[in-house]
Amino acid sequence: MIKTPTLLLDENKCKANIKAMAEKARKNNLIFRPHFKTHVSQEIGNWFREVGVQKITVSSLKMAEYFAQDGWKNITVAFPTNILEIETINRLAEKIQLNLLVESEETAEFLEKNLTSNVNIFIKIDAGYKRTGVDYKNVELLENILKLIDNSGRMKFEGFLIHSGHSYACRGKEEIEQLHKESISRLLEVKNYFVSNYPDLILSVGDTPTCSQAEDFSQVDEFRAGNFVFFDYTQHIIGSCSSDQIAVAMACPVVAIHKERNEILIHGGSVHFSKDQIENHDGITIFGQVVESKGNAWGEPIKGAYIKKLSQEHGTVFAPDHIIDQYKVGDIIKILPVHSCTNSDLMKEYLTTEGKMISRL
Amino acid sequence: MIKTPTLLLDENKCKANIKAMAEKARKNNLIFRPHFKTHVSQEIGNWFREVGVQKITVSSLKMAEYFAQDGWKNITVAFPTNILEIETINRLAEKIQLNLLVESEETAEFLEKNLTSNVNIFIKIDAGYKRTGVDYKNVELLENILKLIDNSGRMKFEGFLIHSGHSYACRGKEEIEQLHKESISRLLEVKNYFVSNYPDLILSVGDTPTCSQAEDFSQVDEFRAGNFVFFDYTQHIIGSCSSDQIAVAMACPVVAIHKERNEILIHGGSVHFSKDQIENHDGITIFGQVVESKGNAWGEPIKGAYIKKLSQEHGTVFAPDHIIDQYKVGDIIKILPVHSCTNSDLMKEYLTTEGKMISRL
Repeated sequence: MIKTPTLLLDENKCKANIKAMAEKARKNNLIFRPHFKTHVSQEIGNWFREVGVQKITVSSLKMAEYFAQDGWKNITVAFPTNILEIETINRLAEKIQLNLLVESEETAEFLEKNLTSNVNIFIKIDAGYKRTGVDYKNVELLENILKLIDNSGRMKFEGFLIHSGHSYACRGKEEIEQLHKESISRLLEVKNYFVSNYPDLILSVGDTPTCSQAEDFSQVDEFRAGNFVFFDYTQHIIGSCSSDQIAVAMACPVVAIHKERNEILIHGGSVHFSKDQIENHDGITIFGQVVESKGNAWGEPIKGAYIKKLSQEHGTVFAPDHIIDQYKVGDIIKILPVHSCTNSDLMKEYLTTEGKMISRL
Repeated sequence: MIKTPTLLLDENKCKANIKAMAEKARKNNLIFRPHFKTHVSQEIGNWFREVGVQKITVSSLKMAEYFAQDGWKNITVAFPTNILEIETINRLAEKIQLNLLVESEETAEFLEKNLTSNVNIFIKIDAGYKRTGVDYKNVELLENILKLIDNSGRMKFEGFLIHSGHSYACRGKEEIEQLHKESISRLLEVKNYFVSNYPDLILSVGDTPTCSQAEDFSQVDEFRAGNFVFFDYTQHIIGSCSSDQIAVAMACPVVAIHKERNEILIHGGSVHFSKDQIENHDGITIFGQVVESKGNAWGEPIKGAYIKKLSQEHGTVFAPDHIIDQYKVGDIIKILPVHSCTNSDLMKEYLTTEGKMISRL
């Protein structure tokens, strides 16, 4: 019986999400290198092995070590290499095929001097997101970095990698497709410039919205989506998934009811959900979407019922009149998270709808 | 040597904050029952013992258990009682003086039927914050709850408790004082109504802004501030503290520099800082305030340098021209957190500026 805030996982939905993305990769003849930053669980990692996955992506060396311990042998750390962690890099690169991201001469020079094992290098390209990476037009910097890699005994250039995180601002398939085309065309500009000297270079793309919704991947070689393993309410608002595909939900105890202002107070705050927020289809900023309860699992979203405010341990659910009457102190209310990556990072474990606990890093 | 995102703690600043608040309580003849939800560390708890603290506040039964294990014998759980956790309540109440919050007849009735040990009860009053609690004007509900408590063999009424969390919207001492006066006068209305029947009832107040800045506590009996142990950049913006008093700072590796747009990319994302944000004095929404580095500690805030965006592992620091030139890949950048409660909850441990690791729940 659930007594405190608990993160529920629907194993069937999750496995269906994994299977669908693996099939999409196979149909498009892509290397499927899923990002494990969302679930960060060795056990859920095994569900990817069941569909043939052998190469994975993570976002920190800590995660790389965690999955290497579980036998993963080919790991890309999709984060600009932190040169201060050179000892961890060398320790890992001795045991597995470690793939690092480089986007500056400083980092390439440092790695050349300090690597003691071989690593593959992706150069991170900025194709429009403007978070990080080498601007796709900056061929001079790319040439300088490639020179450093080529002259190094330890680094092998693998290809160019983008993360089109600005796809999170898209709403609907059409906008996602449009952004995908733009990103790919920019990435191709880079490839066309360098491919004669590096005929084996690969192109790697990654965000969940484009990997879920875009259709043409004929120009790229690898895709690394991660969030799709669970999806979340943000992905639903973007248009990456139906609300049915969301594989995680929070179960939170009702501790007080304030009917006069249509509010249900739950145990479930920012230390459980994270402060991630999204504007829903009604233009309201929410921190979670209430769903129907359905045995140990959950059903459809309840229109107009959502988390309106979070403090450290408290969550304030807004519920319309006919909904609030259905809840009393001591009930459990179920809520789709706005951002499953940060929500599961906070919760640290999953309770499957079949009653099994699954651990994570 | 720091290699990954690390939460630094300045022990001297922290102990000075504790001492100042303990002295304020003593001068005002108040029971000092500090809230331990910010640090959640048995070791830091000991620093409160050094100034004579014997009674504490927490925000979950999990925290209550953690501190009870360390010998704390009088703990208030300042969160509406979650009746689903009755077993934990009974287990704890057997060993320590456990004080619970009640704000509904349902909860009072449930406790009456299910308690197996004695607890003290505070009735949570809403004096204007509108997060939860019984509206201060609703004497009928208060009378009903008190009747249930009085008729119970296990519950003893202790007093009325407020948390004026709307003080976080104040800016400056004057606004804080104004809100404090309003809250106290509302709480006194409740007291005046009930004091003849309950002459020993106490009044408990709690938020850090009013406990730090307000001056007149002659009408109340107990104060429970918590965040002041570290403070943070939000408290500085509110006017609860000087930036010098902030006792924690994040140390994050620089992994990329984008000089053309004045951005430093750091390892340090929402899984380290939390997504809490605040509008700074320049009207800019920030997720952290950059400070000067000063050996193992830190110095003054650097004007115009702040975290402008966070994703899961990435932080984007905006830095003016003359500042960005001072940083290179592989450096450590130091940043005051916007919200030390959630930041330290995510970081799970503290590195003191004297090089000692301190653990927490």
